[in-house]
Amino acid sequence: MDEKIKQALRDIVGPDNFTDKLIDMVSYASDASEHRHRPDAAAWPTTAQQVSDILRLANQERFPVIPRGAGTGLCGLAVPAQGGLVLDMARMNRILKISIDDRVAVVEPGVVYATLQQALEPHGFFYPPDPASGKVCTLGGNVATNAGGVKGAKYGTTKDYVLALQVVLPDGRTLNTGSECIKSVSGYDLTHLFVGSEGTLGVVTKIALKINPKPPYSATALATFESLEDAGRVVSRVLKAGVLPSVLEIVDRLTLVAINENTDLNLPEVDAILLAETDGYTAEEAAQQIAKVIEVFKACNASSVREAASAEEAKALWTARKSSYAVSTRINNNLIVEDLAVPISRLADALGVISEIGRKYNLKIPTVGHVGDGNLHPAISFDGTNAEEVARVHKASAELFERIIGLGGTLTGEHGIGLAKAPYMGLEHDAVSLEIMARLKRLFDPNNILNPGKMALEG
Amino acid sequence: MDEKIKQALRDIVGPDNFTDKLIDMVSYASDASEHRHRPDAAAWPTTAQQVSDILRLANQERFPVIPRGAGTGLCGLAVPAQGGLVLDMARMNRILKISIDDRVAVVEPGVVYATLQQALEPHGFFYPPDPASGKVCTLGGNVATNAGGVKGAKYGTTKDYVLALQVVLPDGRTLNTGSECIKSVSGYDLTHLFVGSEGTLGVVTKIALKINPKPPYSATALATFESLEDAGRVVSRVLKAGVLPSVLEIVDRLTLVAINENTDLNLPEVDAILLAETDGYTAEEAAQQIAKVIEVFKACNASSVREAASAEEAKALWTARKSSYAVSTRINNNLIVEDLAVPISRLADALGVISEIGRKYNLKIPTVGHVGDGNLHPAISFDGTNAEEVARVHKASAELFERIIGLGGTLTGEHGIGLAKAPYMGLEHDAVSLEIMARLKRLFDPNNILNPGKMALEG
Repeated sequence: MDEKIKQALRDIVGPDNFTDKLIDMVSYASDASEHRHRPDAAAWPTTAQQVSDILRLANQERFPVIPRGAGTGLCGLAVPAQGGLVLDMARMNRILKISIDDRVAVVEPGVVYATLQQALEPHGFFYPPDPASGKVCTLGGNVATNAGGVKGAKYGTTKDYVLALQVVLPDGRTLNTGSECIKSVSGYDLTHLFVGSEGTLGVVTKIALKINPKPPYSATALATFESLEDAGRVVSRVLKAGVLPSVLEIVDRLTLVAINENTDLNLPEVDAILLAETDGYTAEEAAQQIAKVIEVFKACNASSVREAASAEEAKALWTARKSSYAVSTRINNNLIVEDLAVPISRLADALGVISEIGRKYNLKIPTVGHVGDGNLHPAISFDGTNAEEVARVHKASAELFERIIGLGGTLTGEHGIGLAKAPYMGLEHDAVSLEIMARLKRLFDPNNILNPGKMALEG
Repeated sequence: MDEKIKQALRDIVGPDNFTDKLIDMVSYASDASEHRHRPDAAAWPTTAQQVSDILRLANQERFPVIPRGAGTGLCGLAVPAQGGLVLDMARMNRILKISIDDRVAVVEPGVVYATLQQALEPHGFFYPPDPASGKVCTLGGNVATNAGGVKGAKYGTTKDYVLALQVVLPDGRTLNTGSECIKSVSGYDLTHLFVGSEGTLGVVTKIALKINPKPPYSATALATFESLEDAGRVVSRVLKAGVLPSVLEIVDRLTLVAINENTDLNLPEVDAILLAETDGYTAEEAAQQIAKVIEVFKACNASSVREAASAEEAKALWTARKSSYAVSTRINNNLIVEDLAVPISRLADALGVISEIGRKYNLKIPTVGHVGDGNLHPAISFDGTNAEEVARVHKASAELFERIIGLGGTLTGEHGIGLAKAPYMGLEHDAVSLEIMARLKRLFDPNNILNPGKMALEG
């Protein structure tokens, strides 16, 4: 990127909102994945107009622009694979409106997920999607990845709450999609074309979200299982019992061992722990549902079941699940957190496949997941300085994806495609789908300036 | 359409699945709207391959193809505005899979909504969207219109349940969108581009739907209001009270009068009736929520409130709402059921606008609506043989849309654009949106053979 362009960028956002310092370029080279590539510069736009001016310039000068939220992505979505300008949306972070009367919140993309939740709390409302990185990730990033979370099975994911978007297109023009009305079917659904498009079609500058009254009651139970098979069967049985838990999570043996090695929690080293939460607007609603879940736990041979008697106890039961990511990172130098989903009836099979691949390639793959919607996160830990081991990791990943697709699964339940899954898109999608996706990309971004190299859009 | 093409169509679907008889052409000229135009022929394909062969032929010979469900649409979506071939999907009506284990149902597009519900009932499951025409409308039509219904506020609409689609593109190629997994963010969301696209981008030949365990308990209450203003304020207050009713419906004075004139229900002729239903997995959950709704009714000056003591009583309370469409058709020779939505806080204003326009243009506009999500159905009754009155109706409609958009509303909450709202698209959508929609249409259907003339896609 030549100095003339850098000066033009400084002119657009102001000198305090532009950087090309080495230390910043190193920071912006990565997200939470193992992918790395430095950008040439970064800017913090503060208005949609600035975003528009930047994209117009980029289209004219043909440099890549990589929109970025908090960089918590696990698939390299925000990694500037071909250099260019990182557009850090962190300074467009105003909550523009919370209207309980309308059941709508309107935010800028840089608003942190948790900030919105805090703002909704005094009203007794919440924004149901709940990414694990909620304390730091941004709502713009959530929209870009169609972020999920632990409450997906009952409450859905980001796409189920985005009502309308303001988007700056790669040519600098502004587009308003959807409607702030709770219900609208007016014209093609452009909103959902942008949700989950990983910053490849446009830069989101305003987001209208549907919000819900928060159920004030919840109940929590934890069960241990001596067999993955048994644990895997629980979810379908819970559904058959007529219950939609607000949370249903799994923590496997390798994760439990890692937790015990790194904490003093002293957890039972069983094949799997399942953690369930039910909720409702009355205590009875939560209690009656958790009672049914506990029945299913027992019918599926749980070796122990514990129901939280209080909010503190519930919090304690959550500790294992919440510490899993942190301890997984300590198993070895490097960690790839995978993300896949299968039809719920294939969960036991998918857990079996993960164990088998771990044994076959001699890799530790501790696994946690949102089993309520068939979403698993096998985390492959390895030593990135060991070339032979890295090769094994790649082979293991490829085999994992192939076998998961064979089970009717999907490459990604909630983390996205980015760089990590791009090579595998052909496993899941037919040639016509891939062609249509590539043509949509060209329709919006003929010069391929927005987040190039992601999602296998270049054919 | 020349005989050679007709013979080719007969060859594709078989002679029993093709017609060009006048009586059929008259039937297929209309849907439930006031729009009329005869097609040249109609076919009942029974396989995706036949749909593909037909579209390939249509693309080659350049004749319009109009996919059709049950023809219950209210905006002319299925009216063959430029002639051509009606593709009646009624004979692709198999339920291909109900998997409670996976929380998924897979159906062909011609499956009637109620047929799926009946098939789910023995499992204690349901498919939450609930169009008023559920007894006859098809799931393919629901997908084409992104159909809503009375339970939209709590459970969302069709788009919130479609997981995956098989679609035949205008060039005859088959595309598979989405994933039958409950959660997937793999690639662009092509599924939602087709949901609500009114048969203009492709012909849906298979649909995978998310299904839910059905809450077995519900509670119902009805309140009368002497002022529309008071009734309009209820919804926001209910939200503020932390309740998301499964149903919240309005029936206005003109509708009540029409019901009394045509039935022996003897309803109170008040400004508005509101009907609320709450539900849950326990009786307490439904009861506690309806108690809060009743508190709000009273705080908003309800002149009377009645809670149903039994399922039979609840059914009786529903009678007024359920008979509203039938009686509205009896007010005069013709009826246009409008469909609009506004931000919930503007409901009282929207109701005021409807009354005002009725007075200004001397028209009877009985109104019902799903107020829980801000969706109103003013029904303009008139005499279609009276040219002067028809002119007034058109002026009234135009003013209605303009003022509703002015309130931050949308042209259609659940019925779609079709022919009826096409002239008004520019009121709601900016020029860039309209251009992008038109370009998407051209990307999928460069020869404009699929349902041409709808949704203002031709610029």
